[in-house]
Amino acid sequence: MFILKEIKLKKEIKIFSPATVANVSCGFDVLGFCLDTIGDEMVIKKSNTKGIRITKIEGYSHKIPYETEKNVAGVSALALINDFKPDYGFEIEIYKHIKPGSGIGSSSASAAGSVYAINELIGKPYNTTQLTNFAMKGEAIASGTEHADNIAPAIFGGFTLVKSCSPLKILQIPCPPDLYATIMHPKIEVKTSESRAILPKKIDLKHAVTQWANLGSLIHAMHVNNYDLIKESLEDVVIEPYRKKLIPNFDLVKTKSMNIGALGCGISGSGPSIYALSKGKQKAKEVAIAMREIYSKTNIEFDIYNSSINMNGIKIINN
Amino acid sequence: MFILKEIKLKKEIKIFSPATVANVSCGFDVLGFCLDTIGDEMVIKKSNTKGIRITKIEGYSHKIPYETEKNVAGVSALALINDFKPDYGFEIEIYKHIKPGSGIGSSSASAAGSVYAINELIGKPYNTTQLTNFAMKGEAIASGTEHADNIAPAIFGGFTLVKSCSPLKILQIPCPPDLYATIMHPKIEVKTSESRAILPKKIDLKHAVTQWANLGSLIHAMHVNNYDLIKESLEDVVIEPYRKKLIPNFDLVKTKSMNIGALGCGISGSGPSIYALSKGKQKAKEVAIAMREIYSKTNIEFDIYNSSINMNGIKIINN
Repeated sequence: MFILKEIKLKKEIKIFSPATVANVSCGFDVLGFCLDTIGDEMVIKKSNTKGIRITKIEGYSHKIPYETEKNVAGVSALALINDFKPDYGFEIEIYKHIKPGSGIGSSSASAAGSVYAINELIGKPYNTTQLTNFAMKGEAIASGTEHADNIAPAIFGGFTLVKSCSPLKILQIPCPPDLYATIMHPKIEVKTSESRAILPKKIDLKHAVTQWANLGSLIHAMHVNNYDLIKESLEDVVIEPYRKKLIPNFDLVKTKSMNIGALGCGISGSGPSIYALSKGKQKAKEVAIAMREIYSKTNIEFDIYNSSINMNGIKIINN
Repeated sequence: MFILKEIKLKKEIKIFSPATVANVSCGFDVLGFCLDTIGDEMVIKKSNTKGIRITKIEGYSHKIPYETEKNVAGVSALALINDFKPDYGFEIEIYKHIKPGSGIGSSSASAAGSVYAINELIGKPYNTTQLTNFAMKGEAIASGTEHADNIAPAIFGGFTLVKSCSPLKILQIPCPPDLYATIMHPKIEVKTSESRAILPKKIDLKHAVTQWANLGSLIHAMHVNNYDLIKESLEDVVIEPYRKKLIPNFDLVKTKSMNIGALGCGISGSGPSIYALSKGKQKAKEVAIAMREIYSKTNIEFDIYNSSINMNGIKIINN
């Protein structure tokens, strides 16, 4: 039986590891959701040589190190094999379509992708929470702290709430079927460290109360498919006032998106990307057109994506 | 038809206006739930004389003023009739079973009770949100600020989340069927103003994140009937560390209640009452016994209540 199982397991796997939006206005550091139309591809191969090797990095490969211990996909993979202790190793190819520093979970996609793929190749001994834990080790070398608000939606799919990091507890939050995201990625550099440093250590209690009322309300709204309440809840009175200064035209993009009828618009992760959520594909497209119009008048390069909510997270792809 | 309706409307009504638990650990200033076994009774009578008169106060009547403009039930009733402008008035009798300053919504019961009853007597022109708005005017003269975290559960029943006060938006949060409360009321005086003053104006961002993760998690847990997750979510890292100092034996009561198997235990409102939530009536009773044992060894007088969650809020009673 053991031999049969071994034979059945693939020796190579290709995956799509999606971009994700963390924070989502009222859910700083805890909430995130998964995108469908933008993500990295990775190929992971079993190898007779023990250990983890990064063998190829294409696409946005600039400044991404090949040394396993310095590469987020490498570090998370090491965390997994240090636990599983296989008598073989893995080679990782990364086709990076998510620009590092874009604010849509580029490092998380790499960190989560490698452990997801290896787990598949070794017969799925680990559950999604355990994989998130391994991936957080990789994420830590990119952002300085172990956090899961991008990794969790990449691995679990849909909307996730990181209830706690220690012990790690991820909740899958249901979402209405007709929710679509628009992402505006202005190609400027906003370092996560800078974006963290700009935040105050202490916040007004009354602002905190507003924020948790909004998050509680959003979770409720998602459960009861109440789009109006989702719209009323997607407010950020704590983080956005600080971070929006780092993003050119943020207020204009937000005002325009909301005027068109978006349910919410805010900073994706620590920026510079801006996310909007809309009811219906058509509305999300209209929001994208408005965002494009605004940024076309600047000399800033940008990418815009429309995406449904990816309910499955990372997926295996053929070839 | 108008005359027929007038005849059908009652001229007098007797109601039970329940005690409530606000804050509920992770939901400071926004969350609350309604009790079943403790509450005031009020009789409201239509009168040919315009205006509002408090005609009787029994029970915990000490220091409760008869002057309408100084009485919470009076002030909320005035807010309603100033809007409705009837060409008649109302007399209010208050049978106060909830001790003022106990931390289980004594003033809210009075403020909510009068407007609920008057609304019944005039043919229910106002909805629950409008009644909450009127009642908040009464609550304000007792606590200094207009807030709804006790009034909302009294009027709506069950668990409520005050999404925002301006405009007022109350959400009814579902709860699992087998949830029971235990209330320990140590008869010491903790003034709401003192209990407010002890709180910091600013809190650590990281504590705020923990708190909103817990509240988000609790709302999710209530929707999916997950008792374990309710237990994990009922934590207060922001307010309890300050306010528990005002409540003798708080830590001991909490530790003992949790060891017995309560899902959560914390400060009710601004104290001094302590609430616990348990799965099942029997567990709630065991928690009550443990609380009694602890306070019996002190020289502090106390009351203990067990109650299911009152899903209907204020109710009309016969006689």
